[in-house]
Amino acid sequence: DGASTYARHRLHLHIRDRLQQMHPFLLSALSGSNSTTAKAENSSIGVDDLVTGALENAFITMDQEIGKNRVAHKIKGGCTALVTVFLLGRAYVASAGDSRAVLCRGGQAPGRQLTEDQTPYNDRQRLQTIAANHPRLAQGEFSPLQFAKRLGRRDLGRRVLCRSAFVQGWFLKTVSEEDLLFPLITGDSKKSRLLATIGVARGFGDHDLLVSDSSIAVKPFLSCVPQVVPLHDCIGADDFVVMATDGLWDVLSNEAADAVVKDAVSQSTSNRCVIAAQALVGAARGTWQRGSQTPDSRQSGGFWRLTISDATAAPDDSQAKEAANGTAKEPPASLDDISCFVIPLGWLSKPPTPAEVPSADGDN
Amino acid sequence: DGASTYARHRLHLHIRDRLQQMHPFLLSALSGSNSTTAKAENSSIGVDDLVTGALENAFITMDQEIGKNRVAHKIKGGCTALVTVFLLGRAYVASAGDSRAVLCRGGQAPGRQLTEDQTPYNDRQRLQTIAANHPRLAQGEFSPLQFAKRLGRRDLGRRVLCRSAFVQGWFLKTVSEEDLLFPLITGDSKKSRLLATIGVARGFGDHDLLVSDSSIAVKPFLSCVPQVVPLHDCIGADDFVVMATDGLWDVLSNEAADAVVKDAVSQSTSNRCVIAAQALVGAARGTWQRGSQTPDSRQSGGFWRLTISDATAAPDDSQAKEAANGTAKEPPASLDDISCFVIPLGWLSKPPTPAEVPSADGDN
Repeated sequence: DGASTYARHRLHLHIRDRLQQMHPFLLSALSGSNSTTAKAENSSIGVDDLVTGALENAFITMDQEIGKNRVAHKIKGGCTALVTVFLLGRAYVASAGDSRAVLCRGGQAPGRQLTEDQTPYNDRQRLQTIAANHPRLAQGEFSPLQFAKRLGRRDLGRRVLCRSAFVQGWFLKTVSEEDLLFPLITGDSKKSRLLATIGVARGFGDHDLLVSDSSIAVKPFLSCVPQVVPLHDCIGADDFVVMATDGLWDVLSNEAADAVVKDAVSQSTSNRCVIAAQALVGAARGTWQRGSQTPDSRQSGGFWRLTISDATAAPDDSQAKEAANGTAKEPPASLDDISCFVIPLGWLSKPPTPAEVPSADGDN
Repeated sequence: DGASTYARHRLHLHIRDRLQQMHPFLLSALSGSNSTTAKAENSSIGVDDLVTGALENAFITMDQEIGKNRVAHKIKGGCTALVTVFLLGRAYVASAGDSRAVLCRGGQAPGRQLTEDQTPYNDRQRLQTIAANHPRLAQGEFSPLQFAKRLGRRDLGRRVLCRSAFVQGWFLKTVSEEDLLFPLITGDSKKSRLLATIGVARGFGDHDLLVSDSSIAVKPFLSCVPQVVPLHDCIGADDFVVMATDGLWDVLSNEAADAVVKDAVSQSTSNRCVIAAQALVGAARGTWQRGSQTPDSRQSGGFWRLTISDATAAPDDSQAKEAANGTAKEPPASLDDISCFVIPLGWLSKPPTPAEVPSADGDN
């Protein structure tokens, strides 16, 4: 949509700009000295802290620009953002939203999820803190507390499990009248919703999004600040980063994606990353299977279903139930949009030659 | 002081009470079912989530009790709190403040820090969020931003490195007049201060603590919610938890403490944990060394100094500088109060017999 198209043309420029601003400080941190350029700065601030700040700041600037130009440029909707930046022989992944980066390692090493899916459920404490500190934002329509189950009037006076902004664990609360409000966050894990409206807690855009049938603005609860993951400490010659939107991860587990990439790169010598990305999308799209047994199928005559084994597909309760009911042998494939990139990291594991290491001016 | 004495007599009662409240939910989570006792609760809530919530809630109740009774019972000051709870064949460490628990593993495995020291520096984002959301608390005397160096008037208009509540990394900000206020958090790592007053961000008590020469209350910035660390996934037969106050950790690194414990338990067959704790305190207290070369020594004739090697002592810039200046051969020992416990975990690694596993009533 509009926000994603706009961000695609602009985000890399903001990242470049913010990294260039940091240039003297990066040189100083790399040389481990307090040069004249960055004098007296805190010596514990390292390259990763500076690059992380530059990426966070670039994302903030990007979202502000979308907000400022949304009327003039007709920028509609919102989007998640996921980037991998290579800098000074290091790699950084930055993610705002529920797209996901997975590190696929060469050899026998298992795949590893790099970024957290920033769903309302996972970003709970930040969202609840906003609701608790700014109660007017939700206009008294939503409860800032999270309950383990949906409450009804018959629960008044009972003790139920509950989480507030300030705790990690669940505790017991006696239900009172205001607890019966609709919860700020509903659902668990990746199927959660914020303000009964949106399934993602971070990203760009959505400046004008309102809760249905209300004047409650969603944007004050959203964040555009990415999670930044430095990668340089763990890179091998046969490592790749898989970056994909939730359309892929809804149906493929990290382990399944890792296996698909390993298989694809082992069978090809050129264009390995493109072939691996195509294989991932192919696996998520599945194959057409005739004669579905589900009577309420909206797709007459069949279904797109995964052909990879259940053991490696993403765990999903509804799919498990469907399988148990005998209505399907394989889980349904993804019908959502999918963007997918496979990025090689192997060239990072080669140690830089001395000429490639920059040094600060006027320094020993 | 008063708060620590009071908490010592009461905290375990609150923990027992909160865990007892959770009993039906714990049984239900253990049996993996939605029994009648805890019907329809979220199935993704596990035992660790419930115990974590019970411990958090017990700490909150403890702090409220201190606040309520502080006048009648003359409870003064504040304290950190660190507990290890054994429950259902599992262990949980809960920490509020800058005491620290370290896991000492048997065999060749290295020691591992379990809890984060909750100094103002480490608890930065929580503190900055409070300052940003409630600017009146600091009465316009403190800047909610964190700067990489102390600012002066000559920095006005310059770009300096800075962190806000909402980011992890450092970014560049042009210094304006309000940035010249005294920072909410000063110093880095464990030598940091909150509101120029206190070196710890969590714990019990301090309800009446004011910033010096002002009416700014510190308590609204403090938290009594502990970090809870479940231990059951990583326990070996020769593992111990070292729990100690900052007086020990100021001079001993985790690695040094691990080595002291390994040495002590290998040389004794009975009272091993008491002997190990005594050895830790002995190592932190060091030995008396005559003829200090420092002219400004306030202790005439000598110094208490560590006798363990520099390589294993806690890293500290000032000590390193002192050593480099030739004013000392070994780092100074701890003159602070020290509380230290060594807790055996080995009996947890023995799998429970079937009779020890509780089951929910009326459940299969």
